[in-house]
Amino acid sequence: MNKPPEIDAEAVVADLHSLRQIGREGTGVSRPAYSNADMEARRWLAARMREIGLLVSVDGVGNVVGRDPRARRTILLGSHSDSVPSGGWLDGALGVAYALAAARAWSAANANVGVDVVSFADEEGRFLGCLGSRAFCGELGAEAIDTASSHGMPLRRALAEAGLSGAIAEQIDPDRHIAYLEAHIEQGPVLEQTGDDIGVVEGIVGMRRMRVSFAGRADHAGTTPMAMRADAAAALFDFAQKVREALAREAGPNTVWNIGIVQVAPGAANVVPAHAELVVEYRDLCDICLSRLTGAIRALVAAADGKNGVAASAEPMEGLRPTAMDPKLVARFEQAALACGARARRMSSGAGHDGMILASHVPAGMMFVPSIGGRSHDVAEDTDEADIRLGAKVYAATAFGILAAGIV
Amino acid sequence: MNKPPEIDAEAVVADLHSLRQIGREGTGVSRPAYSNADMEARRWLAARMREIGLLVSVDGVGNVVGRDPRARRTILLGSHSDSVPSGGWLDGALGVAYALAAARAWSAANANVGVDVVSFADEEGRFLGCLGSRAFCGELGAEAIDTASSHGMPLRRALAEAGLSGAIAEQIDPDRHIAYLEAHIEQGPVLEQTGDDIGVVEGIVGMRRMRVSFAGRADHAGTTPMAMRADAAAALFDFAQKVREALAREAGPNTVWNIGIVQVAPGAANVVPAHAELVVEYRDLCDICLSRLTGAIRALVAAADGKNGVAASAEPMEGLRPTAMDPKLVARFEQAALACGARARRMSSGAGHDGMILASHVPAGMMFVPSIGGRSHDVAEDTDEADIRLGAKVYAATAFGILAAGIV
Repeated sequence: MNKPPEIDAEAVVADLHSLRQIGREGTGVSRPAYSNADMEARRWLAARMREIGLLVSVDGVGNVVGRDPRARRTILLGSHSDSVPSGGWLDGALGVAYALAAARAWSAANANVGVDVVSFADEEGRFLGCLGSRAFCGELGAEAIDTASSHGMPLRRALAEAGLSGAIAEQIDPDRHIAYLEAHIEQGPVLEQTGDDIGVVEGIVGMRRMRVSFAGRADHAGTTPMAMRADAAAALFDFAQKVREALAREAGPNTVWNIGIVQVAPGAANVVPAHAELVVEYRDLCDICLSRLTGAIRALVAAADGKNGVAASAEPMEGLRPTAMDPKLVARFEQAALACGARARRMSSGAGHDGMILASHVPAGMMFVPSIGGRSHDVAEDTDEADIRLGAKVYAATAFGILAAGIV
Repeated sequence: MNKPPEIDAEAVVADLHSLRQIGREGTGVSRPAYSNADMEARRWLAARMREIGLLVSVDGVGNVVGRDPRARRTILLGSHSDSVPSGGWLDGALGVAYALAAARAWSAANANVGVDVVSFADEEGRFLGCLGSRAFCGELGAEAIDTASSHGMPLRRALAEAGLSGAIAEQIDPDRHIAYLEAHIEQGPVLEQTGDDIGVVEGIVGMRRMRVSFAGRADHAGTTPMAMRADAAAALFDFAQKVREALAREAGPNTVWNIGIVQVAPGAANVVPAHAELVVEYRDLCDICLSRLTGAIRALVAAADGKNGVAASAEPMEGLRPTAMDPKLVARFEQAALACGARARRMSSGAGHDGMILASHVPAGMMFVPSIGGRSHDVAEDTDEADIRLGAKVYAATAFGILAAGIV
């Protein structure tokens, strides 16, 4: 093959606008996993895959996979088409549209290696984060499916209502899949700020969460002298300040943290809070750094425990280890960007992605396009269409380079 | 009349145990205003009132009033029989049982002054704090009834379902009612700590509430650099610490405060909080002190506004002015305690009570009995039965002294 195929960047934009109509909410979309809109988007994708000659299957948890029937070895391209409620039109969808367009372009190439396209289910974790890619990679057991639920809706019921069997089929195949490539919007402000066109992901940060609980005593807030209170919220406020100071002190250049969940009970103006809790989440590319932060948080909880009659305790929640992307794929993205006249920048991903799951099984690479204002998980999420088109070219050039070589 | 009647303290305890069976929940009761249990308790009271010859009416908002049909002038005795959800068996009920027993004892006295007994509706403010006593005193308009609701249940519907018309009838009558007396559990730990038997209430503290809101921006907590966040929860934590320091600095000996409501939205571990709010409540016997605290809070809100991209604003909520009890009634309670061999202590009430509403219309007095461990608004609320009996005697002696004199 002398001349690589050319991706149709206009078709990418057209596909994205078509997908945007499914579950549309203002300028964004609401396609939570297994909702009608999510399933409609999956049917739409399956139809597009069939149009380009892929053999399409939808597995028991909703992963839509299009296989090149002519090829024994393929590159696996994709992302996810579900969204958070009131989410953006590009989160996930962009990577699926890129994959579709690359497969469309490649289908004319008549080569003995091919493109498989995938849209993973429930990446956003309505029930379980990266549910689809974990099932696809054989990392999810039936028990997890049995026990997961969302706001009282069992996952099993949601699957059944969506017409899915719930059966798990391990589909990743290192003998078939040369590599996995995923494009995604950055979901942060770095590329916009630096003026770069492409973010080449070196690794996905690890994440840990700790739930810190304070148990005091409910008393009448008018009749109980201040000195006799066991005020759980007061203990939480003290702790929140100290943990923020400690994290800022221990933080490396990549560390970020958030206290996004705060609850105070019983939650009446005239009742001294009996219970308060917060969830502190912290992320870093370095697992040892995360352990150091865990230690700092635990020390503060131990120091708070028993102060003013309030018991403090910490409970680790789900977490993720940092994941490195394949270094050869990092280099291939950079070369492709150079060839397309795009400015690329190595960076870490602060968010989790399906590529993080795939990386344990096949060489995996990811690239970002800029997010306007860094916005995401919101209907305001957007990317300049020129950036979408340029990203599609870099992405396809990377994939086609690998296919032409037959190895990463 | 040479010999004053004697209250049957054992009947008080028996009545309280009977009332405790209505809406019983463990060692406490759940009788939220207009619930089946609340209405059943009111019917039970009406029957007891009739037994002692009172003329009973239930007004349009559920106030149960028993009038002495023989007397032109009376002392009005009572409290409330509704409770908070999962509340204590004595909060409100104690004052009603004392009133009932005093009326029962007095009914044998054959005097030309008498006892009227009342149980006010919704003192606990399921819909409106002191709803019943405000209606009874002509301080509540139909509009307030039209607009009040609780967790989506309009007050009008709750009234209708309870078989009440919702009509407001002003019933307080200074020509008839010589005074209003109310006994209540302390709902605080002071009497238990000082070893006194009776708290004689000099005044009910004023209360103000301020809702302080922080508006930031929701961002992905993994991808947004710390310095680029507008974190509403971080602003709330800073403010909470500063306001607690400021209130401690400005507080007088009677000042208490509470941050009992804290809300952070959207409330996801991986989303930087876009909105956060708290309600700070503060109480004092002195209205000028309350204004000074309001000023301190407003100054901190102004200082916080705009910091790190987060807007801060304050909105005053409902409040209550401090209310003095009638000084002559304070003295009468003290004399009665002395005559009964009880140790009395002057104190302020940190909680609001129906007596606070009545005090603007007729001379009003209140007394407290000790609360074990200071507990209240909880099923654990309790008072030693010896304290209940001694309190009944002091209460009746005060009421009978006023009736014997015909004036406060």
